[in-house]
Amino acid sequence: MVAQKMYELGTKKSTIRTIFEYGRQRAAEVGEENIYDFSLGNPNVPTPDFVKQAVIDIMSTMSPTAVHGYTIAPGNPEVREKLAASINERFGTNFAGRNLFMTSGAAAAITICFKALCEENNEFIAFAPFFPEYRCFVESVGGKLVVVPAKTDDFQIDFTAFEKLITGQTKAVIVNSPNNPSGAVYSEDTIRQLASLLRAKEKEYGHPIFIISDEPYREIAFEGYTVPYVTKYYENTLVCYSYSKSFSLPGERIGYIVVPDEVADFGKIFGAVAGAARVLTHVNAPSLWQLVVAHCAGKPSDIETYKRNGKLLYEGLKAAGFECVRPQGAFYLFPKALEEDDNAFCERAKKYDLLLVPGTDFGCPGYFRAAYCIKTETIEKSLPRFKELAAEYRG
Amino acid sequence: MVAQKMYELGTKKSTIRTIFEYGRQRAAEVGEENIYDFSLGNPNVPTPDFVKQAVIDIMSTMSPTAVHGYTIAPGNPEVREKLAASINERFGTNFAGRNLFMTSGAAAAITICFKALCEENNEFIAFAPFFPEYRCFVESVGGKLVVVPAKTDDFQIDFTAFEKLITGQTKAVIVNSPNNPSGAVYSEDTIRQLASLLRAKEKEYGHPIFIISDEPYREIAFEGYTVPYVTKYYENTLVCYSYSKSFSLPGERIGYIVVPDEVADFGKIFGAVAGAARVLTHVNAPSLWQLVVAHCAGKPSDIETYKRNGKLLYEGLKAAGFECVRPQGAFYLFPKALEEDDNAFCERAKKYDLLLVPGTDFGCPGYFRAAYCIKTETIEKSLPRFKELAAEYRG
Repeated sequence: MVAQKMYELGTKKSTIRTIFEYGRQRAAEVGEENIYDFSLGNPNVPTPDFVKQAVIDIMSTMSPTAVHGYTIAPGNPEVREKLAASINERFGTNFAGRNLFMTSGAAAAITICFKALCEENNEFIAFAPFFPEYRCFVESVGGKLVVVPAKTDDFQIDFTAFEKLITGQTKAVIVNSPNNPSGAVYSEDTIRQLASLLRAKEKEYGHPIFIISDEPYREIAFEGYTVPYVTKYYENTLVCYSYSKSFSLPGERIGYIVVPDEVADFGKIFGAVAGAARVLTHVNAPSLWQLVVAHCAGKPSDIETYKRNGKLLYEGLKAAGFECVRPQGAFYLFPKALEEDDNAFCERAKKYDLLLVPGTDFGCPGYFRAAYCIKTETIEKSLPRFKELAAEYRG
Repeated sequence: MVAQKMYELGTKKSTIRTIFEYGRQRAAEVGEENIYDFSLGNPNVPTPDFVKQAVIDIMSTMSPTAVHGYTIAPGNPEVREKLAASINERFGTNFAGRNLFMTSGAAAAITICFKALCEENNEFIAFAPFFPEYRCFVESVGGKLVVVPAKTDDFQIDFTAFEKLITGQTKAVIVNSPNNPSGAVYSEDTIRQLASLLRAKEKEYGHPIFIISDEPYREIAFEGYTVPYVTKYYENTLVCYSYSKSFSLPGERIGYIVVPDEVADFGKIFGAVAGAARVLTHVNAPSLWQLVVAHCAGKPSDIETYKRNGKLLYEGLKAAGFECVRPQGAFYLFPKALEEDDNAFCERAKKYDLLLVPGTDFGCPGYFRAAYCIKTETIEKSLPRFKELAAEYRG
């Protein structure tokens, strides 16, 4: 009666959601303050005041028809010019409005890219650990997701393993830095090596291989870590950006795709992006929010809370005996579990009311994700529990 | 290099868009005031003040995290309860929040329904004249669009032709009343007859056949015409609603799907709707706009301008000798062209700077669409031109 696949996709609960719901139930039993819920990647820094001010200014001064009318499919031309100028100023790029396609957030942006590019039997490569929805989105457009095993010492790229997985069917490689779930930022060296390998492979196979750079965490990079702007290192790059994390606007669904002039065939790719957005029924990105993000272009993200939380949790985990890569960006740590089976480990952590997500969910067994976009106080109070958990493992 | 189909869908200009762009160019030559552009179905009544007030109230009083955070995929539970109560109050239905799935407008809503329901070789039936994007959306989910020829005397349903086109593969029938482009409202009698025929066919084929009721124009129905609430006549109905026309918010992308308890299998269908929304990357409907429409639930649409415009254009066209069904709702008239070839007719109308859309675009050759969501003054000034055009045909 219905599309069975859609029913399964709509009803099978994700591991993260299951853990989160367990947490809500447990909080009702023992009190909110006794639950250490590290499960959700939901920004806890409030939306900046300048966003609120922009909404009120726009609503008070512009004509409603100009604010709420349809925009053309790629978005309001003035908004796109303004955002392109802001990107250029910050990253030394050379984009114009025509290079931007406004989208309803990053999930739409990356899936539009997948759908625009995917031909028969195409493969898309992701580096573990990776955002689990990549699989759902790639498969939904008829592509195959190929996963490169994690380089667990620093969560950069295992180039030897990667090279072996590139084939004549490889259409694109997904880069997500700062990374969900590892919290790692790809170094300039990693990006250079990636570009050089892909250029060689493009030559070998005689067709473009794209980088789809999924960058919702771009602004959340800590001292000592800079996030290279990938289009400057590799021509065939499509950038997917979202304001969900940088301005704490995840519910509003606003972001964009950058299609640089330098891609193999700008007209062809921009056209296919428009077609993909059309059939995914993203008629236009929400029009008020297009205006708001243009109004706030270049304004800073408040990352102090994440920086403080990351440091606190990292030091606490190290002191408790966990192996963990230092926080570099986003709002996640991805420590090694204290037993091989990360699912069993996360189950055991529940006894201490520590809610953690198994690395298996991100294609990286033996690890776990702790999202630290939560109250600093909760993290402080959780540290003794991590110690008790570790002590249990030492026996 | 790219998905050829996406490239074509993203670059082939629609007839409406081509006419509109011609109009912009022509306006630059002869002046805006000398162009009679009836091409676009873009609401020209300003967004009501209570919407602006709701935005400002919500932004000023609620916490930003509550306003801009992710909602669960079907939407904010309180919003859904409030909208369900409002529908119940207006139409005597019996919905709860669980029956609503908030969407990014009606294009998303109907395509989510198509994708949720479509199994292999399924057919979806539309009644000509119909919104041209139906074909794109149905085909994009792997379905086949079957078109019932128009009943041109009143633009109700030709049940004899319709019955012949229902097969064992028919999954759903699309109802769009008030209709784009005919401006007709389906009578209660039409809906009753439709329900009775579909019930017989469900029995004959032994499986459900759904009505997908696409209702963006529900509020725009003129005196003497009421729009039956289809779920009250037929159990297997999914309602797709949008605030684009009723509150003049087309750019914001906000609407909902109603899945009544009475459908063949509520859990199965609601689950498939959630899965379809997920792969179409509608993570959640824009969160501020969910709150705004709940805040404005039950507030009236301003349809006076459309009523006045429709009457003015209808009487003018009749006086000029056109055959036309009286305006009943939405903001379109769909008169008979003055020659068989509606494309040739619309080309000739351009000589008088009358920009009209050929009926062929809506699956109904020999007719044309005139969208009267434009300035009343423009309509007034256009009437002598329609007279001249008609005189040219009389020779």
